[in-house]
Amino acid sequence: MAKKSKSRRSLAKDIPAASELRLFSIPGLPEIRYGDDLAKLVTGAARRAATPFEDGDILVIAQKIVSKSEGALVRLAGVKPSPKALALAARLKKDPRAIEIVLRESRRIVRSDHVLITETRHGFVCANAGVDHSNVRGKDVVTLLPKNPDRSAKKIAGALRKRTGKRIAVIISDTFGRPWRLGLTEVAIGAAGVPVLADLRGTLDRHGKLLTATILAVADELAAAAGLLMDKSKGSPVVLIRGYRYKPCHEPAASIIRPPAEDLFR
Amino acid sequence: MAKKSKSRRSLAKDIPAASELRLFSIPGLPEIRYGDDLAKLVTGAARRAATPFEDGDILVIAQKIVSKSEGALVRLAGVKPSPKALALAARLKKDPRAIEIVLRESRRIVRSDHVLITETRHGFVCANAGVDHSNVRGKDVVTLLPKNPDRSAKKIAGALRKRTGKRIAVIISDTFGRPWRLGLTEVAIGAAGVPVLADLRGTLDRHGKLLTATILAVADELAAAAGLLMDKSKGSPVVLIRGYRYKPCHEPAASIIRPPAEDLFR
Repeated sequence: MAKKSKSRRSLAKDIPAASELRLFSIPGLPEIRYGDDLAKLVTGAARRAATPFEDGDILVIAQKIVSKSEGALVRLAGVKPSPKALALAARLKKDPRAIEIVLRESRRIVRSDHVLITETRHGFVCANAGVDHSNVRGKDVVTLLPKNPDRSAKKIAGALRKRTGKRIAVIISDTFGRPWRLGLTEVAIGAAGVPVLADLRGTLDRHGKLLTATILAVADELAAAAGLLMDKSKGSPVVLIRGYRYKPCHEPAASIIRPPAEDLFR
Repeated sequence: MAKKSKSRRSLAKDIPAASELRLFSIPGLPEIRYGDDLAKLVTGAARRAATPFEDGDILVIAQKIVSKSEGALVRLAGVKPSPKALALAARLKKDPRAIEIVLRESRRIVRSDHVLITETRHGFVCANAGVDHSNVRGKDVVTLLPKNPDRSAKKIAGALRKRTGKRIAVIISDTFGRPWRLGLTEVAIGAAGVPVLADLRGTLDRHGKLLTATILAVADELAAAAGLLMDKSKGSPVVLIRGYRYKPCHEPAASIIRPPAEDLFR
């Protein structure tokens, strides 16, 4: 008996504790409208789902409901397309009014072959500047990305802190496509309280070799993980991530934008 | 009392159960060598970490240990660089022998400005064709990507099934960079037993609108989630994902490669 217990102890010393991460989707949110207090609604939904917040929790919130709460919606009926939008729309076989909105939200067009890929005013490169008609009430209404998603994230994190007394990080996410690989993944477009990039350069690997090129896009991995529980057909726009070890910090998601001079695919 | 209980019941009916996802890193794996039985080593490590496998678990395994077990390593000392490798190496200020290996692993060069981005023989586009010197024992040894990561995943999944009696899906992952956004994320390069792309086109959103462009890169989101627990300095190359709801299937990770005709950034 004594021997067994000893061997178990030495085993426990050799093997580090398994890290564990838990993700919960927060169901039961109502349809979000302009002016809604997301912190209040999400806190209530989390409590009803028996997953009240804890210090260090990370809340990943789909861009769509942030945009709705901020009134970042446009009714197409009132939009007059420019000649440029009309020409692009004819070529892409799209609604010229929607294309007009995309152009207004963009700094520049990156590609306009069979899809319209632009650089948004924030600097993100994505299809249609993030302008989207899915999961919006009304046939001719589109959502825009929040004006300043980092500021939105910070505001929600602050409101959550006030409401719950807990330190909760916030990531605002959207589903972006990417070159070379099919499919969309959830990425971070706004962040507050959590690292966005983890720079491992200068640290050593398992064999003592210097890691020279390793910067991890932590906020995008957190968003992607949350994406696994964001069912677009059922509307689960908020996911809670618990157990991720990080140093709280205020690094904007905008810092993930690759500087133009370093970008080989502009 | 009766009233309280009733109201709780009706609440439970209105609110769908919170979906939950759990991720565990599997610690305690030894340094992997050529010929090692990964299924055996991982099953043992999971048991010792008190996280034995369950049906439906998804195991995300870092490419590096799969390559090591398959002997996909090259000692630079024996490599004679071609004139093309010498020229590229001089321009990029890299070891010409390492560049030679990258060229051998590549179908074509995508960019060679300050980094070497190529299309691998599998069709993946990434830096240095996935050839890497980190987390390898020996100063002049590099790892290659597994020859056929989908086949490797299938083989490991089959061996896990035999060993545990459980249906366990396998994703082989690597850390890739991407245009426009800084940092690396974990992506799937091999898969067995789990969907790689979830095609939501033709399904309806919350408001009954048809989703027209939504294909989710599920395998990449699973890999990215696992990436959050893969600490490169401590060597946690295996992560278990539990609770993800999916229909078991054999879709190769290779199906995520965007067909050249659709790719605007070749």
